[in-house]
Amino acid sequence: MERLFEPRAVAVVGASRDPRKVGHSVLRNLLAGFEGEVYPVNPHADEILGVRCYPSLSEVPGPVDLAVIVVPAPIVPEIVREAGEAGVKYCVVISAGFSEAGNEELERELVRAAREAGVRIVGPNCLGIINARSGLNASFAAEMPPAGSIAFVSQSGALATSVIDWFSSGDVGAIGVGFSKFVSLGNAADLDFPDFLEYLAGDEETDVVVLYLEGVKDGDAFAEALSACAGRKPVIVLKGGRTEAGAEAVSTHTGSLAGSGEVYRGVIEQCGGIFVEGFEEAFDTAKLLAKAGPPRSDRVLVVTNAGGGGILAADALHESGFRLPEPDGDPSVLPEEAATGNPVDVLGDADAERYRVALEEFADPDRYGAVIVILTPQSVTEPARTARVVAEFAEEFPGPVLGVWMGRHSVAVGVRTLEEAGVPTFPSPERAVRALRNAALWAKII
Amino acid sequence: MERLFEPRAVAVVGASRDPRKVGHSVLRNLLAGFEGEVYPVNPHADEILGVRCYPSLSEVPGPVDLAVIVVPAPIVPEIVREAGEAGVKYCVVISAGFSEAGNEELERELVRAAREAGVRIVGPNCLGIINARSGLNASFAAEMPPAGSIAFVSQSGALATSVIDWFSSGDVGAIGVGFSKFVSLGNAADLDFPDFLEYLAGDEETDVVVLYLEGVKDGDAFAEALSACAGRKPVIVLKGGRTEAGAEAVSTHTGSLAGSGEVYRGVIEQCGGIFVEGFEEAFDTAKLLAKAGPPRSDRVLVVTNAGGGGILAADALHESGFRLPEPDGDPSVLPEEAATGNPVDVLGDADAERYRVALEEFADPDRYGAVIVILTPQSVTEPARTARVVAEFAEEFPGPVLGVWMGRHSVAVGVRTLEEAGVPTFPSPERAVRALRNAALWAKII
Repeated sequence: MERLFEPRAVAVVGASRDPRKVGHSVLRNLLAGFEGEVYPVNPHADEILGVRCYPSLSEVPGPVDLAVIVVPAPIVPEIVREAGEAGVKYCVVISAGFSEAGNEELERELVRAAREAGVRIVGPNCLGIINARSGLNASFAAEMPPAGSIAFVSQSGALATSVIDWFSSGDVGAIGVGFSKFVSLGNAADLDFPDFLEYLAGDEETDVVVLYLEGVKDGDAFAEALSACAGRKPVIVLKGGRTEAGAEAVSTHTGSLAGSGEVYRGVIEQCGGIFVEGFEEAFDTAKLLAKAGPPRSDRVLVVTNAGGGGILAADALHESGFRLPEPDGDPSVLPEEAATGNPVDVLGDADAERYRVALEEFADPDRYGAVIVILTPQSVTEPARTARVVAEFAEEFPGPVLGVWMGRHSVAVGVRTLEEAGVPTFPSPERAVRALRNAALWAKII
Repeated sequence: MERLFEPRAVAVVGASRDPRKVGHSVLRNLLAGFEGEVYPVNPHADEILGVRCYPSLSEVPGPVDLAVIVVPAPIVPEIVREAGEAGVKYCVVISAGFSEAGNEELERELVRAAREAGVRIVGPNCLGIINARSGLNASFAAEMPPAGSIAFVSQSGALATSVIDWFSSGDVGAIGVGFSKFVSLGNAADLDFPDFLEYLAGDEETDVVVLYLEGVKDGDAFAEALSACAGRKPVIVLKGGRTEAGAEAVSTHTGSLAGSGEVYRGVIEQCGGIFVEGFEEAFDTAKLLAKAGPPRSDRVLVVTNAGGGGILAADALHESGFRLPEPDGDPSVLPEEAATGNPVDVLGDADAERYRVALEEFADPDRYGAVIVILTPQSVTEPARTARVVAEFAEEFPGPVLGVWMGRHSVAVGVRTLEEAGVPTFPSPERAVRALRNAALWAKII
C-alpha cells in the first residue's frame, strides 16, 4: 500500500471551482501539503486554484498512483475503469450513493470494475485518507491532524473529523499527540480492516493503531490480521454497536451486521487487541502508548500532594488489577507528616523540590513498572516547576510516567510542559489508570 | 448554620503580613469579596492589608459570628475558648497538627473546648469554607469558584482546590457551572457530613450536593441525613477508599475507617444518593442536574449528524437501561438518505436548519424524557448556529437536552453557546450518557 499513502502523483476526479463542494476541499487539501504532482480533472474547467485542469484521467500528462474520486455515484465505475487504463493503482472514492443508500448493485459494479482494471478502492462513501507524516491530505477534512505515530482507521468519517478537530486544537492535553495515517473506510467495498491492519503492522511510522469498527465482513480474515498486527504493536478497538440499540443504529448507518458486543469483545481480546468502551478512553490509551509505552510490571507507585487524589488513584489501580507495594526508601527525606506508603503523599505544601526528592528516593525502577504523579493546585504548589522535575525524572525512568495535574486554570502551564516533554497527562486519576490498564492488558502484564 | 455561611462579621486569628503564609491568604480572600466586617487578629501587627489589627479576639470591637483560626495547633483550644467568650458561634480551624499528625489528644481537647464554649468547629486541618453566592471566601483557596447552585463538601481540601481551579478556568465546558457552598471538612472533629447534609437539604441556594467522602464516623447518622437530603435534591457521592489499596491510603490520610466499597455503595444507593466512581463523573453529573435536571422518563431521543457518534450513544444508553423508541414523525421532512429511527441521523451535510427541522418533527415531549444532540464538525456543519437552534429547542422541551459537540477546535464556539444557554455539554457520548444515567437513578426512572 505504499503507493496509496506515498503516491508520487495524485489526481482529483471531480475537482470543483465551487469552494462549497467536496471536490474543491479535496483539491485544496492536497495542494496544501502534498509535495508531488496534483492533477485536477474536470472537463469544464481550465484551471482550479491556480493549477491546470485536465478533461479526463487519460489526458493527465504524467503517471498517477492515486486518484481521488468525487463525481456522482453512477459514473464512478466508469472512472475507475479509466483509472486502471491510465495506470492508477489506488482510487479513494469519496462519492456517496452506493450500498449505504440502497444501491447495492452499483457498489458491486464498482468492485467488478476495480477488479477488472487492477485498481484497489478505498470507500466508497468515505472522507478520504491522510498521511500526516508526509503531508498528504487526500480527504475533505477541514484540517490536517498533527504528525505522530498513531494510525486511525475509522468506519465513521465523522468520528475521524472529530478526532482531527480535537488534536488540532492546541488544547494542552492534546500536545504532542500525532498521527501517522488516517483512513476513513466508508462502505469498505474493497479495502477493509484486514488490509489496513496488515499494512500498519509493518508500517514503521505507526506505533499504535486505533480502529473505530461497526462490523466486519469476514470475521476470520479480521481476526487473523488483528492478531498479526497486535502481536507487533497495540491495536485499540472502539466497537460501535455493542448493544441491541447500537446494532440497530449500525444497520442503518453502514449496513454492517454488528453482532453481539460480548462476542466482539471476546474475539478482539483473544487476538490481543484492546477493547475500549468510549471515544475518550480510546485516545487516552493511544496517547499513553504512543508517548510512553506500556507499564513494565503490574506494580505502580503513586506520588501525590493531595491525599484524596492519591486515594482515588489507588482505588482505580486496585480495581484494575495493579499492585501498590510500599516503597523501601528512607522516609526521613520527607517531612514527618508525609505518608511514605503507596501513595507517597508529599503533602499540600510540597514544592517542586519535594517531588524531586520523593521520586528519587522512592521510585525505584526495579520495584515499579510505572509511576503516576498527581498534583493539585494548593497555596504553594509549583505546577510548572514540578512538571519540569517530573519530565526530567521520566527521561531516566524506564517505564511510563503519567501526570495527573488536577484542575485547569493554574495547572495548564504544567500540563503543557509535561506533554511537550512526552509525559502523557490525564485530567483525573481514573482516566490515567484506565489508560494504564489498557496498556497493561496489551502487554499481558495484568 | 446560617451564621457560618452568612456571618455578619469574621475574625482571622493568626492573620499574617507574610504573603506566603496561610494567615495572609485567608485574610486577603475575605477582604476580596465579603461585605461584612473583617477583623485580623495578631498581637504583633497594627494593620495588615490596610485593615486594623487586634491583639486578641476579646479586643475586637464588634460582634463576630465566625472566627477563622490559623495559629499553631497547641494554642487552638485556648483560642476556641476565647472565641466562645467573645460570642463567636463558629470556628473554622485551618491549623493542622491534630489527629492527622497523631495528636489525637489535642483534637479531643479542641472538641471539649468547643463544647464548653458553645462553639461549633469546622476542621481542624481544613482548607476552609466558601459561600460563593455571597462572596464569602473563608479559606486559603487561591480563587473564588463561580456562583451557582452546586454545594461541594469534601474530606479532601486538595480536591476542593482542583474543583475550584477547574471551574474558574474559563474552559468552555465549565461555563455556567457554579457553586453555592464549598466546605473542606478536614478532620471533621465536630461538624461532619450529617450536619452539612441537614443544612444543605434546606438551603434554597443549593440544588445539587456533591460529597467527596473517605469515611464516616457515625454510619447511622450519615445514612439518616443522606436519606433526608437525597429525598429533596440530588446528592452525588464520590467515595475515596473503595478498595483495599484505597482504604489503606485513606487510613494514612484522614485516619477514617474506609470500609468496603460495596458496603458504601449499597448504603449510599439505598439512601437515594448517587454513587459515582470518578472525579469527572461526579461533576459531569452535577452539571447536568444543576443545569437541566433529571430525565422525565427512560425514553431518550438521539439526534446526530454522525452515524458513529449516534451508535456510541445508543450503545451507552442501552447499557445504562434507557430505551430508544423510534419517533413517529414524518420521515419526509429530512433527505431520503437520512435515518429516521433512533438515533435520527440528519447526515454529515446537515446545517443548523436541518437540526431544527429534525428536533421539531421528532422530539415529541410526550414520547421522550430527554434528548441528546450530537454534532461532529464536517464540511458544512454549523457548530455555533446549530447550538443556537438546540438552545432554543431546549427552552421549550420539558426534559433535559444534552449537547455532545465532538472535537474541540471548531466546535468550542458552539459549546460556549450551549453552556451559556444552560444546555449542558459533554465531550463524548459516553460521558453524556453516564451523567444522564446517574440523574435517572436519582429520579428512580431507570
